[in-house]
Amino acid sequence: MIPPLQELVTSLSKLPGIGRRSAERIAFYLLAKPDEARRLGETTSSLQEKVKACGRCGNFATGELCPVCKDNKRDSSTVCVVARPWEIQSVERTGEFHGLYHVLGGLVSPSAGVEPDDLAVDHLVRRVQEEHIQEVLLALEPNMEGDLTGMHIVRKLRPTGVRVTQIAQGIPAGRDLDSADEVTLGRALRGRVQL
Amino acid sequence: MIPPLQELVTSLSKLPGIGRRSAERIAFYLLAKPDEARRLGETTSSLQEKVKACGRCGNFATGELCPVCKDNKRDSSTVCVVARPWEIQSVERTGEFHGLYHVLGGLVSPSAGVEPDDLAVDHLVRRVQEEHIQEVLLALEPNMEGDLTGMHIVRKLRPTGVRVTQIAQGIPAGRDLDSADEVTLGRALRGRVQL
Repeated sequence: MIPPLQELVTSLSKLPGIGRRSAERIAFYLLAKPDEARRLGETTSSLQEKVKACGRCGNFATGELCPVCKDNKRDSSTVCVVARPWEIQSVERTGEFHGLYHVLGGLVSPSAGVEPDDLAVDHLVRRVQEEHIQEVLLALEPNMEGDLTGMHIVRKLRPTGVRVTQIAQGIPAGRDLDSADEVTLGRALRGRVQL
Repeated sequence: MIPPLQELVTSLSKLPGIGRRSAERIAFYLLAKPDEARRLGETTSSLQEKVKACGRCGNFATGELCPVCKDNKRDSSTVCVVARPWEIQSVERTGEFHGLYHVLGGLVSPSAGVEPDDLAVDHLVRRVQEEHIQEVLLALEPNMEGDLTGMHIVRKLRPTGVRVTQIAQGIPAGRDLDSADEVTLGRALRGRVQL
């Protein structure tokens, strides 16, 4: 394979979910579509300079604040805490949450060496004190890292007296009980609600 | 989603095999990896100007001739005919072919309005006349378009007296007879070889 194509295939193969064969197929497709290749190249190259972190919540932003923080129809008394900015997308898609967000920048992870101080928890505490927040909703992964991080946040927020909640953990929609692992099923049982 | 990210996700979603969710995952990955994003952006943008078509066979090339045509250890008496330049890769990977190539630029397709004259068949005839080619091996898709194209090439090459062959059609390696469709199995039966 000639060098410029080889280089593109190598770059594409590093992307998540793209194997060598897919990378080749994409490279050949781009060769056949000059306009799409040019546009993709430009948006990719200029990505870093155009996308910033929202100064208030850490979400993706083009300016000082992200679209959620700029929207004054949002309920500013509730803040949903997520590990990464792209998780905001998932919560937004449900249409069930109308408050603001707070991005931690990761989860506490002893194995990966991520300490509580590496996350934007103090910033969250300051927001709670300054922004009249009444509820902090934790939307963290239901695993050890998520639990450790949640416990740390609860401890740090206790002096403020703010209400801290967490999204329900249980059986996913449309799934058999059979296919749920014991931890998930155990959490679903402990989290049972009255009908 | 903010516009620069949205634009990147839209561009990525157009690539073959990339759905909306994969496009988002890739966009977030690129945001987190500035160096990889810059490199990918540059190789994509500069692709068209760096990759040319070989003046002799139509394969991808960086200069006047492709690596295969420049390699004087190749057997120049045999030419393998493919529809698209990327199919050369597949033939090369087998290590079974040591001749040169000829790229048609497509296949005859009445439904897509591709006529025999849209393909590089006259160029193939000229090569046969001028380059002392002794065998033209057709490696075209085993379907109606491939068959129509093959028949046209055979007719055009008849006056030159060159030997025209075609790759065997039959049951793929490692596959059950059960799982082969009737056309494939029929061609395998007609193409039986003595042991």
